[in-house]
Amino acid sequence: MKTRLLTASDVSKIMRMKDVLVAVETAFRDYGNGAAQMPPKLYLTLSQFNGDFRAMPAYVEGSAGIKWVSVYPDNPKIGLPTVMATINYSDPQTGFPLAIMDATELTNYRTGASGGVAAKYLARPDSQTFGLVGAGAQARTQLLAVTNYFNFTKIKIWSPVEEQIDALATEFPELPIEGAAIEEAAACNIVSTTTPVRAYIIERGWVSPGAHINAIGADAVGKQELDPQILKDAKVVVDDVAQAKHSGEINVALSGGLFHES
Amino acid sequence: MKTRLLTASDVSKIMRMKDVLVAVETAFRDYGNGAAQMPPKLYLTLSQFNGDFRAMPAYVEGSAGIKWVSVYPDNPKIGLPTVMATINYSDPQTGFPLAIMDATELTNYRTGASGGVAAKYLARPDSQTFGLVGAGAQARTQLLAVTNYFNFTKIKIWSPVEEQIDALATEFPELPIEGAAIEEAAACNIVSTTTPVRAYIIERGWVSPGAHINAIGADAVGKQELDPQILKDAKVVVDDVAQAKHSGEINVALSGGLFHES
Repeated sequence: MKTRLLTASDVSKIMRMKDVLVAVETAFRDYGNGAAQMPPKLYLTLSQFNGDFRAMPAYVEGSAGIKWVSVYPDNPKIGLPTVMATINYSDPQTGFPLAIMDATELTNYRTGASGGVAAKYLARPDSQTFGLVGAGAQARTQLLAVTNYFNFTKIKIWSPVEEQIDALATEFPELPIEGAAIEEAAACNIVSTTTPVRAYIIERGWVSPGAHINAIGADAVGKQELDPQILKDAKVVVDDVAQAKHSGEINVALSGGLFHES
Repeated sequence: MKTRLLTASDVSKIMRMKDVLVAVETAFRDYGNGAAQMPPKLYLTLSQFNGDFRAMPAYVEGSAGIKWVSVYPDNPKIGLPTVMATINYSDPQTGFPLAIMDATELTNYRTGASGGVAAKYLARPDSQTFGLVGAGAQARTQLLAVTNYFNFTKIKIWSPVEEQIDALATEFPELPIEGAAIEEAAACNIVSTTTPVRAYIIERGWVSPGAHINAIGADAVGKQELDPQILKDAKVVVDDVAQAKHSGEINVALSGGLFHES
């Protein structure tokens, strides 16, 4: 028996958002039903290098494995990605290491797919417009995922970096992409926010009635993108309560007493 | 930058017990001084397959990484090892995955080296005889490690499987290896026990005054190799108190009230 090794380019060649969406939806369902296992992440924090590693083992029927992911915010200064990841994919019946693969882009796809599955079940089926606040790697996979389920008449993208909007428009010429003011992007029927901000940038008043928001950017204590009043007025759905309270969009509003678990 | 991939045979070609002993001694020292990090293992338990995975991240100066190890006791029936492991070795300054390697044999070497370092500091320097109780993969690395520090006049090996003793004698013709009764092996100046038993097999009366024992076999709740009276009379030294209390040699005597933390 051999262990298959997949480089970043091997993974990119075979990874399709359609398949990732099915995998992520199945995993969410199994986790909700108690058929999957996902122990809390184990952190190795190296504050002297302003970085950390996260060990993320998991089991779903037929598959077991671990993602080992590093988060080093200073990396872009030296030409490396902030987030890098590998997955060791193991046979759950014997433990045999079936494959070891680069998982940096797969991590982006998984996050995109989470937004796609969320919009599939939580957004209004007649949603016509899609707004992206932020236009980086996470916005790209939101676009790939959410457009699987909706035929948008307009996709409005706001970014402080004009070139990022152009790059998305060039990559997806079949999509009705246009640059927009942040208020316009935030007023769409479905909105994905993918910025690294700490003080919120989406005002309550901008959001349309019945909108669905994928608040993707907040991934650490102290980060938020949405006016807490949006959380108060919305039906808030999270994948994992403990994780979301710790470092998801709700963490700042919760710790500030502006939002409460019902 | 490239990630180096090392197969089991690549690792075997370059791994030398001398180097592993230095690495393990350094890691123990750094961990004791608080300069290393080793969070508690994270388990993924798949009881339906009688197996589990363990995620073991760690940091020592200059190195970070994780070992992903599977323990499937039924594997030998289908020709696979009980324990299989891989290590993802990462740059602690950037998180970059420097190497991914097979770590099954490296795990055996590490366990052997722990016994070697223990004997170096805890056994009497004039130790003349070395006893091995059990003669499998763990006994082999005990032999490789402990003999780095002592010139034994006799190495007495007990095993219910005669061929294992012959195999060690053939592999190490320069060592004074001989088969022995279990009482004889247990009476040596340094003793390494590497059996999977649950009811103890080493009697208090067999052990010589001033002997040093590496009790390697107990690695799970309910496992023990030594008469609890040995623990009572000995100076007991463990590497990690929490881990040792949970599943090391002392776990059965502790939970049975036959041994107490001072």
